Amino acid sequence: MATVRLIEYGEASPEVRAVYDDIKATRKVDWINNFWKALANHPPTLKRTWESVKEVMAPGALDPVVKEMIYLAVSVTNGCEYCIRSHTAAARKVGMSDAMLGELMAVVGMANETNRLANGYQVEVDPQFMTKT
Amino acid sequence: MATVRLIEYGEASPEVRAVYDDIKATRKVDWINNFWKALANHPPTLKRTWESVKEVMAPGALDPVVKEMIYLAVSVTNGCEYCIRSHTAAARKVGMSDAMLGELMAVVGMANETNRLANGYQVEVDPQFMTKT
Amino acid sequence: MATVRLIEYGEASPEVRAVYDDIKATRKVDWINNFWKALANHPPTLKRTWESVKEVMAPGALDPVVKEMIYLAVSVTNGCEYCIRSHTAAARKVGMSDAMLGELMAVVGMANETNRLANGYQVEVDPQFMTKT
Amino acid sequence: MATVRLIEYGEASPEVRAVYDDIKATRKVDWINNFWKALANHPPTLKRTWESVKEVMAPGALDPVVKEMIYLAVSVTNGCEYCIRSHTAAARKVGMSDAMLGELMAVVGMANETNRLANGYQVEVDPQFMTKT
Amino acid sequence: MATVRLIEYGEASPEVRAVYDDIKATRKVDWINNFWKALANHPPTLKRTWESVKEVMAPGALDPVVKEMIYLAVSVTNGCEYCIRSHTAAARKVGMSDAMLGELMAVVGMANETNRLANGYQVEVDPQFMTKT
Amino acid sequence: MATVRLIEYGEASPEVRAVYDDIKATRKVDWINNFWKALANHPPTLKRTWESVKEVMAPGALDPVVKEMIYLAVSVTNGCEYCIRSHTAAARKVGMSDAMLGELMAVVGMANETNRLANGYQVEVDPQFMTKT
Repeated sequence: MATVRLIEYGEASPEVRAVYDDIKATRKVDWINNFWKALANHPPTLKRTWESVKEVMAPGALDPVVKEMIYLAVSVTNGCEYCIRSHTAAARKVGMSDAMLGELMAVVGMANETNRLANGYQVEVDPQFMTKT
Repeated sequence: MATVRLIEYGEASPEVRAVYDDIKATRKVDWINNFWKALANHPPTLKRTWESVKEVMAPGALDPVVKEMIYLAVSVTNGCEYCIRSHTAAARKVGMSDAMLGELMAVVGMANETNRLANGYQVEVDPQFMTKT
Repeated sequence: MATVRLIEYGEASPEVRAVYDDIKATRKVDWINNFWKALANHPPTLKRTWESVKEVMAPGALDPVVKEMIYLAVSVTNGCEYCIRSHTAAARKVGMSDAMLGELMAVVGMANETNRLANGYQVEVDPQFMTKT
Repeated sequence: MATVRLIEYGEASPEVRAVYDDIKATRKVDWINNFWKALANHPPTLKRTWESVKEVMAPGALDPVVKEMIYLAVSVTNGCEYCIRSHTAAARKVGMSDAMLGELMAVVGMANETNRLANGYQVEVDPQFMTKT
Repeated sequence: MATVRLIEYGEASPEVRAVYDDIKATRKVDWINNFWKALANHPPTLKRTWESVKEVMAPGALDPVVKEMIYLAVSVTNGCEYCIRSHTAAARKVGMSDAMLGELMAVVGMANETNRLANGYQVEVDPQFMTKT
Repeated sequence: MATVRLIEYGEASPEVRAVYDDIKATRKVDWINNFWKALANHPPTLKRTWESVKEVMAPGALDPVVKEMIYLAVSVTNGCEYCIRSHTAAARKVGMSDAMLGELMAVVGMANETNRLANGYQVEVDPQFMTKT
């Protein structure tokens, strides 16, 4: 149970409904997931977050499935259950196979391990890594 | 300055040299970066970590550039300087463009934000996200 | 279910009861929440933690509601469910409105995002930020 | 040294300059800090992040100094040096005294400690904390 | 419910069964816990992770109970429920008493607090701490 | 450079000097490290933190070297440079050998990896792990 009420479409203000409508249209879905219903308690955060997510996750130099996998990698590292479950589902929907998920998790696990080994010994950065593009 | 000595090739045991040789051969480079020189203080960790990284980062269902970007996304989330610098360099080497880096950072930032919004309101997972493959 | 038994008042040692009594008196409540009942398995930790919390959360240069919101911001960033729920309740009790909660979450989300952008690009600190009071 | 070039005003595109101008006007400052110069490598992220920060940090139900302190509390928890230094400076600029900083740090430290005690024993949430507004 | 199917012994491939058999033999148990059944969806990760854990957790310069307590300290810091519960059980099995658990949690809490105080004030490292072995 | 002034003994208030004297006497050292000099800007935090650390790190059911290693494991997981360097030094002073440090880091790395694998797949806790002492 969330710490705030989940705002359903029927009780939402026109401002909130406009965001819900755009989510449905953009994602071609007929329902709104709980994350947005919770954010709707603070309409400016709902609108700003949705518009940011819409812009950031749109196809660009990276494929949607790559973006979803990066989203999932961060969520796994932070241990956010809602985000892990929703972005595992989203990544699968845009093409992540079981093999891709398996390799993603292997990389995420390895990175979390070596991050601590590098930090743990306070390894100094090699000059070769200090150059730019 | 690391908290342990960095073990150079010339002073390394045969066991450590064998790992250094394999790193050079696998990556087609002629130098060893400091991370491995620090791990060489504990040879079993050097060997196990290198063999794990070699296996995990090899081409598979995911392209090397995607794997490097996932590695970078985790390292950024954890704030590990050594890892951020070395994997930014590694990702660029295997094809990450400036535009791809820009989008990667945008996704990582957004995921870290929404992870906290979902956690902050303790949003319950929608039943639609609870299904498997 | 906690990994340790929750120690109820009736079965507690005099040392533990003294802390429970002080919690009730200080907070003007007639019950003890589970956090303290778990800590009671290690009485020195119960006593030290309670006395520290009591000192730190007392009114001072910062209002109690500001202190509770800072506590909540940290708990959201760390993803601690118990802490999020108990400090959301505590903050509301001392005056946090829905609008204040909405803005708090917006700031917490934004800070978590920009923390990663700053780390992700390893942005060097401007000399203007290196001065003291 | 950042992993990307810092884009100075003189070499910036009109799109980037417009954001820089708005930062200067909104904050009443005559310089741009490095964070924005790094983000300018990806103009959509620069624009979106600035507009979000501007909206989120504007006065509202919470005072600017409270918002800056919450930002700082998150940055300290995440260990982001750039963010800690820039938001310590920002918070002081809008009125955070030494005494307020001292209490802020005390609360942040305590919350990080009790977050782990609650998680460490997996303390179940009391039903009293499960109610909403 | 995990986001992947849990692979039971009866339906596992010979490769997966070999790992399950080694887990049972090494740990002298007659069941496989869910963690490994989830990893079995990606056999290379199952095999590599098990062999790494087996090597790392074997008796050496540190006692098994010390290793389990360090594992638990990390898991508590990261807030991983599965890991906290399984390693609390594992540590108890190899000799962690209630008093030891109480002190472990006290240290973990204190370290998480002082980590933030040191980071929060950006305390510079004393030269006395910069020496090696 | 810290974000606050470091308070030297000569300029300290009697209250702060009393803590400094106790640190020197308890640890049998003739200098005060920067961490305490930073905390001295807020005397109640200095006193409370020192007394807590003194109590928590005293010999008990766990040896001092085990306590220092647990402290280090947490600090590595959080990536706190000051804490990693000071507690690596402290652990060595009370008996941590190179071999013990090597094994400690191996466990910390592995725990950080498996924490993410367990979270990443949202593995449900086995009923066998849900029992208490």
